[in-house]
Amino acid sequence: MNLQRYLEERSQLVDRALIRYLPEQEESPSTLNQAMRYGLFSGGKRIRPILALASGEAVGAPIARVMPFACALEMIHSYSLIHDDLPAMDNDDLRRGKPTNHIVFGEGMAILAGDGLLTEAFRVMADAALRRGQDQSAALRALREITIGAGAIGMVGGQVADLEAENKKPTRALVEYIHVRKTAALIRAAVRAGALVGGAQPKQFTRLNRYGGSIGLAFQIADDILDVEGSTDRTGKREGRDAELRKVTYPTAVGMAKAKARAQELLDEALHAIKPFGSSAEPLRQIALFIVSRVVRSAA
Amino acid sequence: MNLQRYLEERSQLVDRALIRYLPEQEESPSTLNQAMRYGLFSGGKRIRPILALASGEAVGAPIARVMPFACALEMIHSYSLIHDDLPAMDNDDLRRGKPTNHIVFGEGMAILAGDGLLTEAFRVMADAALRRGQDQSAALRALREITIGAGAIGMVGGQVADLEAENKKPTRALVEYIHVRKTAALIRAAVRAGALVGGAQPKQFTRLNRYGGSIGLAFQIADDILDVEGSTDRTGKREGRDAELRKVTYPTAVGMAKAKARAQELLDEALHAIKPFGSSAEPLRQIALFIVSRVVRSAA
Repeated sequence: MNLQRYLEERSQLVDRALIRYLPEQEESPSTLNQAMRYGLFSGGKRIRPILALASGEAVGAPIARVMPFACALEMIHSYSLIHDDLPAMDNDDLRRGKPTNHIVFGEGMAILAGDGLLTEAFRVMADAALRRGQDQSAALRALREITIGAGAIGMVGGQVADLEAENKKPTRALVEYIHVRKTAALIRAAVRAGALVGGAQPKQFTRLNRYGGSIGLAFQIADDILDVEGSTDRTGKREGRDAELRKVTYPTAVGMAKAKARAQELLDEALHAIKPFGSSAEPLRQIALFIVSRVVRSAA
Repeated sequence: MNLQRYLEERSQLVDRALIRYLPEQEESPSTLNQAMRYGLFSGGKRIRPILALASGEAVGAPIARVMPFACALEMIHSYSLIHDDLPAMDNDDLRRGKPTNHIVFGEGMAILAGDGLLTEAFRVMADAALRRGQDQSAALRALREITIGAGAIGMVGGQVADLEAENKKPTRALVEYIHVRKTAALIRAAVRAGALVGGAQPKQFTRLNRYGGSIGLAFQIADDILDVEGSTDRTGKREGRDAELRKVTYPTAVGMAKAKARAQELLDEALHAIKPFGSSAEPLRQIALFIVSRVVRSAA
């Protein structure tokens, strides 16, 4: 398979579904709709929804069944970026090379656009769960996984720990605590949700869960490395922004060489976990390689 | 029945359940837990959860079945107050006579406490829906109602319209547009959710829905009137705060006499809708009377 083409095709499918799932323009105030759409359609790579779809694919589920959950994950990811960029948080005025939501719409509207996206994500999942032919119990379990990945013991908790860690001594334990919650939890939830809605058997679920946890952490470590080594062109944010904010990152905690070794180790774990799926997990395998090979040349 | 005693008892039951449903202190960063708890336990009247429980009661449902949804509604209400009070929104430093969340914990933490409460609300509902013996379909429909009441075409949309209306000419159409979304939508969702989880028949649901819509709007009109006529002691916020913020309110749009007449009219509609339930809807009846009699003496 050609990964770039696969990612592009999937990303387009996700975008089309997202438009369908958002509330009609006339149903809610137009500024809110604009701000939510600006957040959602600003060049994201759609990694979380694509992972959810690929996880479903690994257990033989049709895309359509997983799609609402995939889109909900992207809506939640998108809300979290809008809120993270606010002046009271990371105070970023640039995201993927474009002005951030509060720069364009003002802080109040950016907060509400985030709140709206988060709430609508749950409406999209509830609608899907109530659709005829849907396994309600599986859908509910997927929805529950996503609340856990996104909530106080997941992403929100990670962002709190991240805020509180600024200027703290960056230890490996601290940085893993933050990364596991702030980034890995929702990525793992994406893989888990795709598996559940896809009808995974318990043993399949265990393997996909292990893949999701490893690749979620690897993703954030790769991001940390890119912040140091990448250019604004590639990351869409100003180079060295993490250092400027005195963020706790993997390279500052353990050094660049060990950070890369850890990314490689997590990649190996992820690939090992999905080996028994064979070709049905080829997309998951290639996505994992892609995530890590951006920063570790030997990975591919 | 003695309404004051009923409200106190219910409110205590809700408080005890809320503590149970929140994540364990050690599972997430302690500041986040403190900020979420500060928002939840700051003297709220628990009107939304009590209405959900009373709506379930009207169709003969045990309290325990509705309680998780009732608590989720209070968590959502609580998040909305935290975000509404932020400097970028209403910039309030006092809520129910106490310093607001961002005054105590800082803006970043207040935003995250709100995000956490909103997300955890859906976890609480998903957990309840997955409980053995729960009617999953009814639970999902209740969850969906709550996303609609809270989301872009409900509460979040109303808050956007409210922000955008400051300094606009207050017409009756504009103020109803805002109030129906900002306040009534979630109150109506509370009544609808209680009815659905409680197992209401379609005709019962229609009547409870009508009650919820009327009492939701009456509640906000009463709040507007209290802002003008009440004292800080009764409202917990500074007198005339709405006027200071140039908020669109019912009295400024149509005058005080007509605002009170509209509250009375909505009360009559609400009471008419639930008449056929007889004594099982006595709590709903008395809550409606209570809401309006605070501002219209003849109502009781």
